[in-house]
This record gives sequence, structure tokens and C-alpha cells, in this order.
Amino acid sequence: MIRSFAEMEKQAVEAPSKRMAIAMAEESDVLKASMEAWESGIVEPVFVGDKEAIQQAAGDVNLDISNIEINQATGEKECASRAIELVRTGKADLVMKGRTATSTLMKAILDKENGVRGSGVLSHVSIISIKTYHKLLLMSDAALNIAPDLDTKASILRNTVDIARRIGIEKPKTAVIGAVEKVNTSMPDTIDAALLSKMAQRGQIKNCVVDGPFALDNAVSGKSCQVKGIESEVGGDADILLMPDIEAANVLYKAIAYLTDADIAGIIVGADVPIVLTSRADSDRIKFVSILAGVSVS
Amino acid sequence: MIRSFAEMEKQAVEAPSKRMAIAMAEESDVLKASMEAWESGIVEPVFVGDKEAIQQAAGDVNLDISNIEINQATGEKECASRAIELVRTGKADLVMKGRTATSTLMKAILDKENGVRGSGVLSHVSIISIKTYHKLLLMSDAALNIAPDLDTKASILRNTVDIARRIGIEKPKTAVIGAVEKVNTSMPDTIDAALLSKMAQRGQIKNCVVDGPFALDNAVSGKSCQVKGIESEVGGDADILLMPDIEAANVLYKAIAYLTDADIAGIIVGADVPIVLTSRADSDRIKFVSILAGVSVS
Repeated sequence: MIRSFAEMEKQAVEAPSKRMAIAMAEESDVLKASMEAWESGIVEPVFVGDKEAIQQAAGDVNLDISNIEINQATGEKECASRAIELVRTGKADLVMKGRTATSTLMKAILDKENGVRGSGVLSHVSIISIKTYHKLLLMSDAALNIAPDLDTKASILRNTVDIARRIGIEKPKTAVIGAVEKVNTSMPDTIDAALLSKMAQRGQIKNCVVDGPFALDNAVSGKSCQVKGIESEVGGDADILLMPDIEAANVLYKAIAYLTDADIAGIIVGADVPIVLTSRADSDRIKFVSILAGVSVS
Repeated sequence: MIRSFAEMEKQAVEAPSKRMAIAMAEESDVLKASMEAWESGIVEPVFVGDKEAIQQAAGDVNLDISNIEINQATGEKECASRAIELVRTGKADLVMKGRTATSTLMKAILDKENGVRGSGVLSHVSIISIKTYHKLLLMSDAALNIAPDLDTKASILRNTVDIARRIGIEKPKTAVIGAVEKVNTSMPDTIDAALLSKMAQRGQIKNCVVDGPFALDNAVSGKSCQVKGIESEVGGDADILLMPDIEAANVLYKAIAYLTDADIAGIIVGADVPIVLTSRADSDRIKFVSILAGVSVS
């Protein structure tokens, strides 16, 4: 069970390096993060994009990329579909979004003939490492599913449980988050939370313990559960936070990334391979730990 | 303009102390925080509740409360209405929730004959002081309004602007938060955000500059605005975060309170006097800065 990004990095360094296709690699930040991961022996990058533009972007930040394979492609659409083709044909283990728009990359992933869509729902998983919490915290969905209904929430949760298990959390404890810890008919998210708990208990969502509704404090603080009289195996010890909607999840992601010095990684899961997908404004460090997360679950 | 809780405390210590009625004071944490505020000369508490139970709760944590006035009352309902009566009749300047349930206290506030409701919407304001941001950050509404419509959001914003001005922020910059920075018809909160911006521009919400939609990073990071090409007076320099709903706001409140070492205060505003209202599980420090916030805006 991996309890920190340092542990995750150690394991990734020791394992054979994964091949990572970068869709439209002509972006300095993405080049920097992927070269750092290459130097640590974590990934073997394949830069998909315009050779001249990639070399220019590397030159701008004094990166020596002469040892890295460049797969020539022009334009967002061609770059995205080429990167996806590389994973579909087994020539890469994972994909990272470079300068392509997210929507273009998603289209290539979802393409019926040439995509890598898989059978289920795609969703975004964040992995948070913060010194005020005793282990890694997975969180869904800050980027893809806007206002998921109960079934979609269940699918998102299944994806997240799968990712947790890939980093060694055999039976992740899942807290379904709302604004309060009680079922409240004027707060539909608390109803979904109660239903998801029961669904997990009945085996409709496997390999995890689910409890909710919780406010965020109940999920991460045993003291908070004690004060409020909440008896729960999950309370204060959650591995996964399932958020009610994209607004609450995105606010948590951004608060961690922009108002604390904690680490947070972001990947898209549910396709045949993980997609490393960060926001343009995210720091190099976020991009690096996101590569790390993608490698660890691929 | 007050830029930190330390400054707020300094001003409160220098000003004449305010009288604060505590509704059902027989709770050790609330007694501790209010005695700390009394010792600093910030408040003159009036403990409303059962004398014996209050003395017992004080004894449990070794507090000497012999200099504090106790106003005898029994039961949640009587304690709440007595505390409200004290402010209504000018015998107290603000109220703090003790052991009464929030709902009981709200009923006493809203009572048509004997309440202190005022004319507008009641809402919750959080005040955040975090070392990664260069000034205080006000945030609404983490506790009272569940899924506010556009008009209610405007009222909540007016309340928050009023509070900002009371701590010397003459024309607060307001960021209306969603999951993304663009108007998106499948995300109703981004539409409300655009409308609130226009309403402020047209003078329907006064004394503030409003911009949105923003994701949280755009509101607090100038770099994020630059990378995303957002030109805005508010971006990266927000005084107020207007959150889309109680889930997103509560998650931000709880993340700050339970996953960082930052300070956060919580008060209910919009009634004739501020109500200091914190969660039972919140720390002594949160209770203390919440008293401070209540005093500063009363």
C-alpha cells in the first residue's frame, strides 16, 4: 500500500519505465515535467507533435531532448489521434495531454473505431498528499462529470476504487461527501450518499467500504466524528472522497493546489489506459506527480 | 482595511468590549473561547443557561467564571429566546450559539414578535486567513442557504459585501465561483456568475466589483489568470468568494479548517446583529476567531 508520493516515486523508479505518449508535446511545462520523469527512469516519453515546435519549446527552457523520440504530427487533432494510436497498438502504456485541448483528446479517446474508450464511464481522479492527513486521499470527480446521477456516481466510484487498488489499497474506505452528515430530503446529495452506502453493502459496488453522507470534516477527522456521535469505519480514515458534483470537487482540487503546499495529481481513468491530464495553470510539481500517478496505475 | 486576524484582534482589544450573549452556555469549548476573548478585553460575555450546569462545564476545564454574569434559563428554547431578547433590548451587541441546536436558535432569531430578523436574507459568512494568500478572504455560504437561486445569491452577496465593508474593505472584489471560468450552458452556476457580474455593473449589487464565472484558482492566483488569458480586476485578488451552493462552500470551509493550519471564522449575518455560529467539532481557535469576527462587524 502506497502511502505517499515519495513511496510512489520509489516504486516507479525501481519498476521498468513506462512508455508515455504526449499529445502535442510543444509546451515547455509538459516537456519539463516529462523530462524530469525520464531522468528519474520513470517514463520513456514519446513526444507526438511538430518536431520543430517541440525543439523550440524545449530550447525556451534549456532542455536537452536529443535522446527522446519525436513522433511527427501536425495540429491538435492529428496529435491526439496519433498519441491514442500509440497506446491502442501497444507502443505506449499511457498518454499525457500536452497542448491539445482536452475536448480534442477526449474525442480521440472516445472514437469508436480508433479510440481506447473501454466499456465504462470515464472519470477524473485526484490523488492528494497533505501533511495534515495520515495517508493518500483519492478524490473524484473534479474535471469530467458535471452533475452525476446516482448510477454515474456508482460508476465513478468503481473507477476510483480500481485506481486505489492499483496503488495497493485493497479495500478502500470511501466517504461520500455532502454539506452535512445526515440524510436530508432537501439535499439530494445526502440521499445519493445513503444509497451508495447501501449499494456497496449489497455488493453493487465491490471491493470497498462506503459510508455517507459525510461533511468533509467527518471523512478526515476522527475527532469530528466523535464530537458528532458518528460511528463509522470510514469516518476519520477515508481513502476516497466521492464528491457530490464537479463544483465541490473542483473547489477542493483548486484549494489544495493553490492555497496549500500539498501535492495533488490528476488523471483520467476508465479508458483502457490512464490519461495524465492537468490544467495549463498547474505547477510543474503537479504535472510531475500526475505523471507519477499515471505510471503507477498503468 | 483589516488584513489579518492579528490586526482584527488588535482593533477589537483597543475598542470598548462588546456584550455577547451565549445561548445555552453550558459547553466547555464555548466557555473556553469566550473566556479567552473576555481576558483579552474583546467581549463581556453573558452566559445564558442553567447556572449549575454552566459552573459544572467550566469546572470540567478549570475555568474561573466567577466574574461573569449568568442569566438563568432552562432548556434550549428558553436559552435561545432569552439570548435574542438580550440583543433585541440592547443589553447585548451580539449572540453566540452555545449548546442550543442551530435550528432552535434560528427560530428565535426569526420569531416575528420577539426576533431580530431584519429585512433581508440570512446567510453565513466565513472569513479565512491563510498564509498562501495576501489578505483576508470572505466566503459565502457554507452553512445556511442550500441551493440559492440567482436572487438569493444576490442577497447573500449583499450581506457579504456589507461584512467586508465593516472590516474596512470599501469596495470588495468578488469572485463568483464555479468549476470553470467560462459560461457553460450545462453548468447553471456559470450562468448565475455571469448574471451577477452584470447585475453589479448595473448597480443592482452595490459597493463591490464582481467577476465570474471563475474556477477557484482564477480567483486567488494571478498566474492562473495569466496562463488562461483571463483579464480581470478581480482575478488573483479576490476579497470575497461567492460559492455556487452549500456543498462547494462547506467543502472549502472544512478543507481549510481540517486540512490546513489556517484560521477560519464563521458568523451568520443579515439579522439585526451578527450571530457567532461554529460547528461543535470546530477547534477552540476557530471559535475564538469567530467571536473576533462577530465582534468586529457588530
